[in-house]
Amino acid sequence: MKKEVLKEPIYVEEIVDIIRSGLSNEEIKEKLNDYHDNDIAQSLELLNKSERLHLYNILGSEWMSEIISYVEDPDDYIKELGIYKLAEIINEMDADDAVDLLEDIDENVKVKLRSILDEDVQADIRLINSYDDDEIGSLITTNFICIKDNLTIRQAMHELIQQAGENDNIATIYVVDEEDRFCGAIDLKDLIIARAGMALESLISYSYPYLRDHEKISESIEKIKDYAEDSLPVLNSENKIIGILTAQDVIEAVDDELGEDYAKLAGLSAEEDLQESTKDSMKKRLPWLIILLFLGMLVSSVVGVFEDVVAILPIVICFQSLVLDMAGNVGTQSLAVTIRVLMDENLSAKDKLHLTFKEAKVGFSSGLLLGMLALVFLGVYIYLFKGYSLGHAFLISGCVGASLFLAMIISSLVGTLIPLFFNKIKIDPAVASGPLITTVNDLVAVVTYYGLAWILLIEIMHIV
Amino acid sequence: MKKEVLKEPIYVEEIVDIIRSGLSNEEIKEKLNDYHDNDIAQSLELLNKSERLHLYNILGSEWMSEIISYVEDPDDYIKELGIYKLAEIINEMDADDAVDLLEDIDENVKVKLRSILDEDVQADIRLINSYDDDEIGSLITTNFICIKDNLTIRQAMHELIQQAGENDNIATIYVVDEEDRFCGAIDLKDLIIARAGMALESLISYSYPYLRDHEKISESIEKIKDYAEDSLPVLNSENKIIGILTAQDVIEAVDDELGEDYAKLAGLSAEEDLQESTKDSMKKRLPWLIILLFLGMLVSSVVGVFEDVVAILPIVICFQSLVLDMAGNVGTQSLAVTIRVLMDENLSAKDKLHLTFKEAKVGFSSGLLLGMLALVFLGVYIYLFKGYSLGHAFLISGCVGASLFLAMIISSLVGTLIPLFFNKIKIDPAVASGPLITTVNDLVAVVTYYGLAWILLIEIMHIV
Repeated sequence: MKKEVLKEPIYVEEIVDIIRSGLSNEEIKEKLNDYHDNDIAQSLELLNKSERLHLYNILGSEWMSEIISYVEDPDDYIKELGIYKLAEIINEMDADDAVDLLEDIDENVKVKLRSILDEDVQADIRLINSYDDDEIGSLITTNFICIKDNLTIRQAMHELIQQAGENDNIATIYVVDEEDRFCGAIDLKDLIIARAGMALESLISYSYPYLRDHEKISESIEKIKDYAEDSLPVLNSENKIIGILTAQDVIEAVDDELGEDYAKLAGLSAEEDLQESTKDSMKKRLPWLIILLFLGMLVSSVVGVFEDVVAILPIVICFQSLVLDMAGNVGTQSLAVTIRVLMDENLSAKDKLHLTFKEAKVGFSSGLLLGMLALVFLGVYIYLFKGYSLGHAFLISGCVGASLFLAMIISSLVGTLIPLFFNKIKIDPAVASGPLITTVNDLVAVVTYYGLAWILLIEIMHIV
Repeated sequence: MKKEVLKEPIYVEEIVDIIRSGLSNEEIKEKLNDYHDNDIAQSLELLNKSERLHLYNILGSEWMSEIISYVEDPDDYIKELGIYKLAEIINEMDADDAVDLLEDIDENVKVKLRSILDEDVQADIRLINSYDDDEIGSLITTNFICIKDNLTIRQAMHELIQQAGENDNIATIYVVDEEDRFCGAIDLKDLIIARAGMALESLISYSYPYLRDHEKISESIEKIKDYAEDSLPVLNSENKIIGILTAQDVIEAVDDELGEDYAKLAGLSAEEDLQESTKDSMKKRLPWLIILLFLGMLVSSVVGVFEDVVAILPIVICFQSLVLDMAGNVGTQSLAVTIRVLMDENLSAKDKLHLTFKEAKVGFSSGLLLGMLALVFLGVYIYLFKGYSLGHAFLISGCVGASLFLAMIISSLVGTLIPLFFNKIKIDPAVASGPLITTVNDLVAVVTYYGLAWILLIEIMHIV
């Protein structure tokens, strides 16, 4: 059964071959035991319906429950199973995986399932569903090892062996008192290397970190990452452990959290995936686009004020897009940095001032540099290609450069202060800041640019 | 020592109180044993230098090495220690933490350290440093349990207890053959509940998933997440385990990967944090801003072609920013969705076609809706406030609406095809797509809008 030379994993194909090999059920089961459940899960889509049903029969509901929890879109496979097999599998699943699975199931199937699922499974599912999606409680795994604090080392080891059969997450053993309140945790490693005569108490970390069930995920995620534990206990208001948060749950939460922010920066109301229908995608994108359209109309009406400038000196319109785009780019950079900083840390007033000041400095320096570049390059361009005198060419490019400089300073400040403000008033800055910043920056850039052109070029220099 | 009622964790302050309590060293050590190393790490900044040095003396280098690995900016504390204590601590650290720590240390201190660090520690550090930052090998932890495949269950358990003292990651036990090549893994849980008479072979998963040291992190991260294991082995070309990737390493990698993509979407060359100097921030932001400036100049010269249109019909400039911004917004949405999809899945040609087609549909439907809205609202606005006749007002707003419609379809396609193209030619689409898409969309929008205005309003309808 051992492979002398390892090839790159092509496990999925090997698994399919084993299932189709015509070996006895026992032999297939033994062979599949060598593979990771995720690889078996990935092989399901290469099998046909009757092969899959055969596999369900061979492996049994406990094993299948592990495999199904690795399937990304289990809908199709679930339908094949029939409601009784499905109930058997859900009964064996970790409660959080069961909740995920049930989300995709039709309401009428769910009603039928409710009458056949085990009572304790239903209770776990109800518990997880009782939390909002943004609360720690919605992420918990109810599958963990828990012992009383008055055991001896030998008894604790015995308890561990008893419970390990049912539970995957054994690296940390949670300890409760007589009234089932959380009182600490034991690192499995310490229990394994402990000598039998020692007191269990000496192994218990009594001030072990924990989470509250109603904590907001977004507010706790940095803390959770900092502890870098395989799992952390989640307590309710009575200090009882309702479940644990595993490193895998944290990976999912980090992924979701960042994915959502990424989506929001691009003006999507939520993350999309490949399979989504056009209609669903539009629902996530249109809200912003419509808001942006009307804000854009607002900007348009301000540009309208400067129609006269353009009528007199049409060349200024050439550089409108340049000034607006650059202001927008700088503003977006400040926004992205501010949102990431807000996500990662609890900022003191001093930090906020520091951040704002730094962004202003970055805007000032970038604006100065880019303004100079624009002055030089556009001046030469206007002189050579637009038929203006050298003096007038550099007056016009100077106007562009100066507007760039001013607009970029203001945009970096706007891109920092608006998310800080939304954060202060407890509105998600990633959602709210985008359209407002685009509009404010556009307005600032338009007024600065056309205003400068009007005053400097037309009123003062009369270059037309 | 037990607390009857748990308060919200204020552990850091409790730890400071214990250190300042004046208790004997042994008592302090025993009390601190109840706390998480991360909490002790966080307490360091509340202590003064002499208290910190006292703590180093009480806890010893092994414990301190654990604590230091939780400190985010260990520079200051390291300097206090002196080179010999620092070397002792690094000798006890996990190799990956030691590498992180050494990154921040002055070159001349590093040279001195090299002569006093243990040879095997130096070898581990050299190994990790030998990998590029984007390779799996750069993330490994060298701290794992490894046993030979020819042991009995009892011998394996004995080995585990021997090695567990030195190693934190014990949930999975890796198995190698006589020539030290990886041949499988044992779930600690299975070993704990196994009966002594069983063959060890029956516990080993021989087809256990693994990673290659030179694999690119960005290409493997989805696979790693899918396996949802506490750790995965990393093999070199000789199939020897050079280290493992723990769930904590994966959390960091996911965080970095998404953070980088988030930064790139905003035109930053890398993620920034709060402490960064203005100079460092500018280094990350300027490359893009300068590229965007010159691309913006390109757009300006194209706008210049339409100077005549504006000179004849100045009202069209009012809506230039509207059309350009909306095209940009739609393009950014398509870009964000495409990059996330590319990150999450290995796309077949069919998937790519599907995605492109869907984005085109979204662009078409959004464009149609927003174009209609612009037609109606802007028509009324122009009629009421700009003094045009009703017919001419709706001709102008129709021109804006039609340009919006066309520009949005093209922008969604551009926002999808450009990242797909960069992905195909193995250039990171998140970096390369941004400026190119902005520019292409601006050009498309400008040409569509002014082109339509010219042909429709001036050449055909002669509305001036």
